[in-house]
Amino acid sequence: MAFIRQTQVRFAHVDAAGIVFYPRYFEMVNAIVEDLFAACGEDFAELHLRQGKGVPTVNVAIDFTAPSRLGELLDFDLCLMRLGRSALTLGVEARCAGAQRLMGSVTLVRIDLASGASEAWPSDLATRLRNTLMDPAI
Amino acid sequence: MAFIRQTQVRFAHVDAAGIVFYPRYFEMVNAIVEDLFAACGEDFAELHLRQGKGVPTVNVAIDFTAPSRLGELLDFDLCLMRLGRSALTLGVEARCAGAQRLMGSVTLVRIDLASGASEAWPSDLATRLRNTLMDPAI
Amino acid sequence: MAFIRQTQVRFAHVDAAGIVFYPRYFEMVNAIVEDLFAACGEDFAELHLRQGKGVPTVNVAIDFTAPSRLGELLDFDLCLMRLGRSALTLGVEARCAGAQRLMGSVTLVRIDLASGASEAWPSDLATRLRNTLMDPAI
Amino acid sequence: MAFIRQTQVRFAHVDAAGIVFYPRYFEMVNAIVEDLFAACGEDFAELHLRQGKGVPTVNVAIDFTAPSRLGELLDFDLCLMRLGRSALTLGVEARCAGAQRLMGSVTLVRIDLASGASEAWPSDLATRLRNTLMDPAI
Repeated sequence: MAFIRQTQVRFAHVDAAGIVFYPRYFEMVNAIVEDLFAACGEDFAELHLRQGKGVPTVNVAIDFTAPSRLGELLDFDLCLMRLGRSALTLGVEARCAGAQRLMGSVTLVRIDLASGASEAWPSDLATRLRNTLMDPAI
Repeated sequence: MAFIRQTQVRFAHVDAAGIVFYPRYFEMVNAIVEDLFAACGEDFAELHLRQGKGVPTVNVAIDFTAPSRLGELLDFDLCLMRLGRSALTLGVEARCAGAQRLMGSVTLVRIDLASGASEAWPSDLATRLRNTLMDPAI
Repeated sequence: MAFIRQTQVRFAHVDAAGIVFYPRYFEMVNAIVEDLFAACGEDFAELHLRQGKGVPTVNVAIDFTAPSRLGELLDFDLCLMRLGRSALTLGVEARCAGAQRLMGSVTLVRIDLASGASEAWPSDLATRLRNTLMDPAI
Repeated sequence: MAFIRQTQVRFAHVDAAGIVFYPRYFEMVNAIVEDLFAACGEDFAELHLRQGKGVPTVNVAIDFTAPSRLGELLDFDLCLMRLGRSALTLGVEARCAGAQRLMGSVTLVRIDLASGASEAWPSDLATRLRNTLMDPAI
């Protein structure tokens, strides 16, 4: 039903209050989006550096519902909220031992890096994104 | 009408596509929120390290409306959307030479770091936040 | 003979030239030092937040011998160069598919966070550091 | 005698111990190196994105001699140690109200991004680097 990855809260992630500094959560989310695309056969290095395409984030809407502390293991869960022609909205949730830490959504758009114009998802990638985000076995 | 600060897009902020990696925008926003609190007499070092209080971000809702490139000067503009008992919602916009790059809101809550419980803003700080975010001269 | 961990080069690590921005290498190194201490029974959260001790880095001396690119898997290898009363110098090397990317050393010192004074390594930790960094089986 | 810039220690720079996390010092150093090149007429955006050249850091050797805390103002000072055909070694020191926090060196090499090969500094840039790093008035 979703794409799940575990991330450990590192020393680099926490602030003077000993809790995750919220911009670092977005680095974690971005790494998991990379893993999602890689699992769908779309390698970020190939995409950006050789194909000249990108998938910039155009919207984030996140509630940080409880703090996360150094050393904790966070389970990030991505689900499909909407797959449009060139946009993809992912539901995002992170939990630690079942307790919610954040939830919300991020929206990406596929673009051509040179022109900046949005582009349709290749149809096989769209299919794989749907399957990966729906498949309870992954 | 707002609290305005300028930030330069640094090499550390951009990604393989040569544009700002969106988690870095939140580092910029956080630095400007620090400046806002400092301008209101609430020093972050004093607040976190000596008073044992914090102002974690509990919600972000941002549209990244156009990419920002290495070397650009971004004008960040914070305005007051809502000042509650212990929460503060700031409108955020960034422009480069007048062209919008992002807009949305961030919500902070004042907490006691030891207990994690929310706390009312001290009334003089609340007044200064209102005045600073309203005062066209700052 | 060493402590080895693999790290993937993420989108968050690379710069406008598509290669790892060197401050990000130090985030990777720090994460592996965390893993080393955890493997020796010294949890960073416990150490910093409950014991009030720290292990700040007091010296780095690194040659970046070849660039690393988005998506690459880097093998980091820590070895023991010197274990003093309160200091620890680790040799660091990173390779990708056998090709060297960086080599050098980092030196940490155990301190008391409140006083800032250096402190001797607990003797069981010193033993475990020696064993872990020497043991070819780990 | 040197190129001097002031940087404030931000919330984003500090760790769970309330002191600067050392990889963040390198982000500060890199920003000041950007400022140095800009002051010499070599804009990093122009250099990387339009000319296809880069100046990766190939060596760092730094002693972190005292911790820096949230809110402190750090005076970074770059001086010329060696300007070779394609390499530049800068002495780096940071002080807070006169008290040293770090000192050492960073070495950059000018390269062609496509080939990765080192390239001689343009002679006018070499002259400006010498003048800027020597000139007591800047």
